[in-house]
Amino acid sequence: MSSRHLELRREAYEANRDLPKNGLINLTFGNASAVDRAAGLFAIKPSGVDYADLTPESMVVVDFDGAVVDGNLRPSSDTPTHRRLFLAFKDIGGVVHTHSTHATAFAQAGRPIPIFGTTHADYFNGPVPVTRRMSPREIETAYEWETGNVIVERFEGIDPADFPAVLVNRHAPFTWGASVAKAVEVAVAVECIAQMALLSLQLAPDLPEIEGELLAKHFKRKHGAGAYYGQSEPI
Amino acid sequence: MSSRHLELRREAYEANRDLPKNGLINLTFGNASAVDRAAGLFAIKPSGVDYADLTPESMVVVDFDGAVVDGNLRPSSDTPTHRRLFLAFKDIGGVVHTHSTHATAFAQAGRPIPIFGTTHADYFNGPVPVTRRMSPREIETAYEWETGNVIVERFEGIDPADFPAVLVNRHAPFTWGASVAKAVEVAVAVECIAQMALLSLQLAPDLPEIEGELLAKHFKRKHGAGAYYGQSEPI
Amino acid sequence: MSSRHLELRREAYEANRDLPKNGLINLTFGNASAVDRAAGLFAIKPSGVDYADLTPESMVVVDFDGAVVDGNLRPSSDTPTHRRLFLAFKDIGGVVHTHSTHATAFAQAGRPIPIFGTTHADYFNGPVPVTRRMSPREIETAYEWETGNVIVERFEGIDPADFPAVLVNRHAPFTWGASVAKAVEVAVAVECIAQMALLSLQLAPDLPEIEGELLAKHFKRKHGAGAYYGQSEPI
Amino acid sequence: MSSRHLELRREAYEANRDLPKNGLINLTFGNASAVDRAAGLFAIKPSGVDYADLTPESMVVVDFDGAVVDGNLRPSSDTPTHRRLFLAFKDIGGVVHTHSTHATAFAQAGRPIPIFGTTHADYFNGPVPVTRRMSPREIETAYEWETGNVIVERFEGIDPADFPAVLVNRHAPFTWGASVAKAVEVAVAVECIAQMALLSLQLAPDLPEIEGELLAKHFKRKHGAGAYYGQSEPI
Repeated sequence: MSSRHLELRREAYEANRDLPKNGLINLTFGNASAVDRAAGLFAIKPSGVDYADLTPESMVVVDFDGAVVDGNLRPSSDTPTHRRLFLAFKDIGGVVHTHSTHATAFAQAGRPIPIFGTTHADYFNGPVPVTRRMSPREIETAYEWETGNVIVERFEGIDPADFPAVLVNRHAPFTWGASVAKAVEVAVAVECIAQMALLSLQLAPDLPEIEGELLAKHFKRKHGAGAYYGQSEPI
Repeated sequence: MSSRHLELRREAYEANRDLPKNGLINLTFGNASAVDRAAGLFAIKPSGVDYADLTPESMVVVDFDGAVVDGNLRPSSDTPTHRRLFLAFKDIGGVVHTHSTHATAFAQAGRPIPIFGTTHADYFNGPVPVTRRMSPREIETAYEWETGNVIVERFEGIDPADFPAVLVNRHAPFTWGASVAKAVEVAVAVECIAQMALLSLQLAPDLPEIEGELLAKHFKRKHGAGAYYGQSEPI
Repeated sequence: MSSRHLELRREAYEANRDLPKNGLINLTFGNASAVDRAAGLFAIKPSGVDYADLTPESMVVVDFDGAVVDGNLRPSSDTPTHRRLFLAFKDIGGVVHTHSTHATAFAQAGRPIPIFGTTHADYFNGPVPVTRRMSPREIETAYEWETGNVIVERFEGIDPADFPAVLVNRHAPFTWGASVAKAVEVAVAVECIAQMALLSLQLAPDLPEIEGELLAKHFKRKHGAGAYYGQSEPI
Repeated sequence: MSSRHLELRREAYEANRDLPKNGLINLTFGNASAVDRAAGLFAIKPSGVDYADLTPESMVVVDFDGAVVDGNLRPSSDTPTHRRLFLAFKDIGGVVHTHSTHATAFAQAGRPIPIFGTTHADYFNGPVPVTRRMSPREIETAYEWETGNVIVERFEGIDPADFPAVLVNRHAPFTWGASVAKAVEVAVAVECIAQMALLSLQLAPDLPEIEGELLAKHFKRKHGAGAYYGQSEPI
């Protein structure tokens, strides 16, 4: 096990460990992966292992062809979906998948999460998109790879940095970011805004989405050249 | 107390202890039991005892005729229901009963839990079934035994391994599995998918159930000869 | 401070301490009291004190005329309501008041909690009743005493042991029991069945209440001469 | 750093620390500030810093013109809103902003929180108001300052002590009080009454608001010359 892999495994491990700490995990559902672009590898949670039993060593290192390069356990059954996303979205450093309760409710209903407020606009440049339903052929053949394909299809012409999450129809959310830690943060945000949107719909079933100028203001407060939220700029 | 019983009690104890840890217990409602098929015995929670006060020694060992074989406490009042299930479902190793909040809401409403997504399909080969309402005669005579009977009646022609849970109408869920630990996991799943289904119905009141091919794919990923989820197969 | 009072204060203290442990407390709302019928006294939470700061010594001992007999703090502003209930319901040993979230939602809506399942029937012989709204005169004069009066009025012809809780209209629940510890347990039950009933109504807006024979069976499993739940009878 | 600032920083720090303890924080949203009227300064959370990493020293001290007087970090991006409120509401000692789930759902829906019960009336002399939507010009120029302006506009002719919170349309709640600790308490109350109101609306969609005399009774039990709740008056 190279020290390079150890660092990558640790990054993946810490992201996986943070998922249940943030209340995003039901049972053993969900997984996080971190990529090393230079090495052409990513580290991912092993399949069906309890979150409480994870260690950096238990992470599985996989290459971009899907071959296990390092690790004693079978990788997450969702590994081909992660791999597909790393291949298509060149700038992302990590992928997170959860079955968090409210985001999954939207995914099951096949509805995008409508953008009703600034909490949402701080993370997304519009509604959280949902994929089309998969065809019987897609489901019966390379199911997890095809799951990645319908996500990539949904993002044709869309910058994944503007919409760092998707709801897979009938399934659950996937999120991503410049790092896997950022993908975890987005996974927390998706669950949070899904719950808020659901409650807002109970209060106002025909609620229109947020005004364009307010969306632009909040998204740009946190993203891009003019961002002024946080501590990244000198004061 | 034979060492055989001690092992069985411990198994039942650990399952009961895990129920409140998983947020499934309201008040003292609920109970878990583990069976020893060779000995013709099962161990079950004592009646009305706080979960915090349970020990392996406090579990009550009962035979298949319902006689207490070992133990200083009265067994759960639901013991005849457990016994009925062990007699009818020959392959199960444990039974769990809870009044978990969302699953009980479906049971009270007399509605099966509709299958809207892959979280559900990973555990069940369709909706979680609900029993018919019990007759006054069934209620007034051997109530808890008859509760088992209406479950068994509901499962005529159904493999309990395909549907490892039931909602007793007006009452609450019962779950089972190859081991009582597995029955606890299913009890967690039932509560989780009940909440997700309820939220999905709020978002899409007329939501059709999951496509058959997606149900088959997910159920078979985890069950049967072609399963490839988890670590049970060599990598 | 007599040792008699110390015991009574301790009983009241433990009940008050258990309210936030059971998730029943929002802010400093709520209070519990324990009665000593022989001495004609009850001990109750001091007004507006944080639950985390309570001690047995901080409980306030009050007589049946409402006079503070022991204690350095002002008693709960709801003391006259507790006193009214102790005077009217001769067999109760404790009273609990909370603003628990779901029960309060029913109280605000002026709706009794409908009895939809066996969880409810294990504690109540029917729906949890709600008081009529109070008149301007009742509100403007001895408000907290009159709150007790509308509860007592609602229970004309009803045995408070059959219905150990009430929702005060626009306000929140009060519960009672043979001991204040039992009243705490009922307060947990009321919040639990309120949430379950609300969720069941979302699933089935016109859901009829539980069948009479099932209600009778469950209520009598736990109450009265034929009770067989728990460990109170020899096995 | 003067010792005066240290005290002020500590006050602001403790309020910020208490926000996640009370379940009011999603991600890093939210911030609390404490004012020192004599010094013409207030201390506020630094922007985008994890609540777990806060210390008294990390608080940023700002004057009434918005200039950073003390501190190594950038102040919260919402600082101009706090500043606007301190300038307009002369008697408040602290401001709190959260994105707490249920209150934010009302803000997103643009609906005031209706006053349905005594829990609400203990803190507010009526519904929790909501601001008008902001104009494109207000959003595109000095957005956070203009956010303060629409709050102040909404409170024309209203005593902020009678309504110690507002919902900013499409955004989330701001609260205030005589001290920042009190503003935290109000932030807890706003989330609590938002959830209760939402649940009451599910039970009774056309529920009228609380009767005027009951509102007056509860608000005055806790506020003003005739208050008799808590321990502030001699017994």
